[in-house]
Amino acid sequence: MLNELSFAEAVAKIERGDITSERLVRDCLDRIEAREDDVRAWAFIDPELALSQARACDSADERKGPLHGVPFGVKDIIATYDMPTGMGSPIYEGNMPGYDAACVALLRAAGAVILGKTVTVEFAGMAPPPTGNPHNLECTPGGSSSGSGAAVADFMVPAAFGTQTAGSIHRPAAHCGIIGFKPTFDSYSLHGVWPAAQSLDTLGLLTRAMDDIELLSAALLGRPVQLNRSGVSSPRIAICKTHQWDIVKPETEEAIAIARDTLNKAGAEIIELTLPKSFEELVSARDIISSYERARATSHEWFNHRDQLSPQLQRGIAKGFGWQYEQYTAAMKIGADCRRKLDILFEDFDAIIAPCTAGEAPPDRNSTGDHTHIGMWNLLHVPSYALPTHKGPNNMPVAIQLIGRHGADDALFDFAKWVLNQLVPA
Amino acid sequence: MLNELSFAEAVAKIERGDITSERLVRDCLDRIEAREDDVRAWAFIDPELALSQARACDSADERKGPLHGVPFGVKDIIATYDMPTGMGSPIYEGNMPGYDAACVALLRAAGAVILGKTVTVEFAGMAPPPTGNPHNLECTPGGSSSGSGAAVADFMVPAAFGTQTAGSIHRPAAHCGIIGFKPTFDSYSLHGVWPAAQSLDTLGLLTRAMDDIELLSAALLGRPVQLNRSGVSSPRIAICKTHQWDIVKPETEEAIAIARDTLNKAGAEIIELTLPKSFEELVSARDIISSYERARATSHEWFNHRDQLSPQLQRGIAKGFGWQYEQYTAAMKIGADCRRKLDILFEDFDAIIAPCTAGEAPPDRNSTGDHTHIGMWNLLHVPSYALPTHKGPNNMPVAIQLIGRHGADDALFDFAKWVLNQLVPA
Repeated sequence: MLNELSFAEAVAKIERGDITSERLVRDCLDRIEAREDDVRAWAFIDPELALSQARACDSADERKGPLHGVPFGVKDIIATYDMPTGMGSPIYEGNMPGYDAACVALLRAAGAVILGKTVTVEFAGMAPPPTGNPHNLECTPGGSSSGSGAAVADFMVPAAFGTQTAGSIHRPAAHCGIIGFKPTFDSYSLHGVWPAAQSLDTLGLLTRAMDDIELLSAALLGRPVQLNRSGVSSPRIAICKTHQWDIVKPETEEAIAIARDTLNKAGAEIIELTLPKSFEELVSARDIISSYERARATSHEWFNHRDQLSPQLQRGIAKGFGWQYEQYTAAMKIGADCRRKLDILFEDFDAIIAPCTAGEAPPDRNSTGDHTHIGMWNLLHVPSYALPTHKGPNNMPVAIQLIGRHGADDALFDFAKWVLNQLVPA
Repeated sequence: MLNELSFAEAVAKIERGDITSERLVRDCLDRIEAREDDVRAWAFIDPELALSQARACDSADERKGPLHGVPFGVKDIIATYDMPTGMGSPIYEGNMPGYDAACVALLRAAGAVILGKTVTVEFAGMAPPPTGNPHNLECTPGGSSSGSGAAVADFMVPAAFGTQTAGSIHRPAAHCGIIGFKPTFDSYSLHGVWPAAQSLDTLGLLTRAMDDIELLSAALLGRPVQLNRSGVSSPRIAICKTHQWDIVKPETEEAIAIARDTLNKAGAEIIELTLPKSFEELVSARDIISSYERARATSHEWFNHRDQLSPQLQRGIAKGFGWQYEQYTAAMKIGADCRRKLDILFEDFDAIIAPCTAGEAPPDRNSTGDHTHIGMWNLLHVPSYALPTHKGPNNMPVAIQLIGRHGADDALFDFAKWVLNQLVPA
């Protein structure tokens, strides 16, 4: 079925005239029809609205752009002019912002079909979503980009937007067994993306194929697509166990050990990276920054609609308003200092492999899992991938996290493609 | 008349029971009634809506917060749930976003009365606004926070929000003869503030008194008000002529020379600061970043409502889409490099005095003036003030710019208060 094509494959097939956009979108809609009652990945889907975009592509005189006719999922904290944007909150049920977020407008201008809005955890926070993990509905898909992770993993749509403030792209990617990409902080325009914490929020991508990242990123940044750049031969890869290694589960430990050996045999130079002691403070610093900034970003809802916020979010906001300003600025300083140190450390290697999630998706639909291993890197503002390389004891996906130097997103794409090819040969 | 009170004076008088919020708001509304046909500072004003907020304060059992009952103006690119938010564009005429921007919600929670929406230049860009300079209606008030600058200067409201991407707080402050404050980049929550360029946009304040800055900033950041901290005695002040000194007009040259001598006599240690050669590139780098990011932030309007954008903005967006990604990242690198260098330079002094605008407001209502002298510092992300210290040959206001170290906003407040007291004794 066409819904199993990657984004890049679908682009190529439509360009060659092998398939129509309508046929592709229909196959995605059929898959949703068959599975959505169980998976619940979509906050809004209007088949006719999706098909009308597809038909407009098929009947256009020329290709609208490099993403012509291929469907895409949009996390429901991201504004769309023709579909409601609900933020996963009853406060904004049916909310029509009246414009497209910049990222949506840019994908549409490049020819993509906006298939629908994917479920977000309430305001991209911590409350559990209705979504199930497509590999095992008893398990969480991870949050907060739960719907994007589940929809892409379940072949409902080839790619979707996620956003990450702690681990909201990489956790659903890891738990659902797909690729998560978080670019360098502040890379993609955030206009129209509802904020959680402005000095941490990053818009990113969830896909099933590496080339999709390059294709979509090029459209968002306005640069040419470079799918077949000069290959990577012997990258210097640092294995980093971090200060949180004691809460890593055996399946993640094994995934990293196998990655280390396999990549070493494939020509990678392997380095052990021990982070400076001050990096221990990143987890708590990120938590302070996130809740301090979220409290302020959510102040309208807090002061006017408090009873419609989940107990989890109410606790989070109360915590955020409780921090003293000096505690917040001290946390910001920890982030800035560690960013400077990491940039110097990066002179000795090209990329870091570190834990992504602790292990497989927990069989717990009341939690979205733990973001400790991801959140600390998120505060470092560096680009990173969740790469689905392994399976755990319950046959659920396990990912490794691949982290690059600040601003070196193109190089990291090449390394990630190489790493994934070694660990999961096509 | 009560409309001439500063924000802090009005807070104190209401707290003491000397005046009511309703009486204060009525005096502001009367001033607007008398002057608005000429000045045109307001995009939206509903006297009854303002008075109902004032009456709610007056009849409340206790003070709502430290800003209880005092009116504030909100630039019309900032979302308000009870007033339209038009972005100065016909595309968003009558737009009701359905929520308050974080900064508005925080001021309301602290007790402020939202008086109305002040005129913004179209999407906080470069097209001329309808607003006139209250000191001479033939002159521009500066942009893009034109309405906030004119309304505060003309005693229509004691304080208002501005936003700055190049010089949009300090230019109206300088041309209208009031105080402009731009905090360190990323200090105040930007949720609900329509973006121009996300790595430059900064929310700030326009007031007529220094204490207002501290009072409002404390409410936005969630920290105690400290109006009477330990005084400044002998600050080290660097006089910086910048690489753009040749386009400074005599009145600004004179203002800086007088500031230098007066502050020196008052006990300041004066240093000459010659910026490194690489700082020459800041003006063009800021321009590239601003237009590259603005094009993307405005992509929905560009692709769907292009004919409703002004010719100026259309040219700006076309330029922004024309930059290559590598040109943009090179410009970003210039900014980051100069920020690092400036932070090191700051070890030798406490604050910098530099030109703010070239000179008085130009007698040209088709321009908002030149932001060259402000924009370069804006890219450096440092906190700064426009301080109205002088008058020019046409008896129009002339300001100096006072710039502080990244993150040292509290210290800069103390220096600014001291500087203003020396140059314009109360």
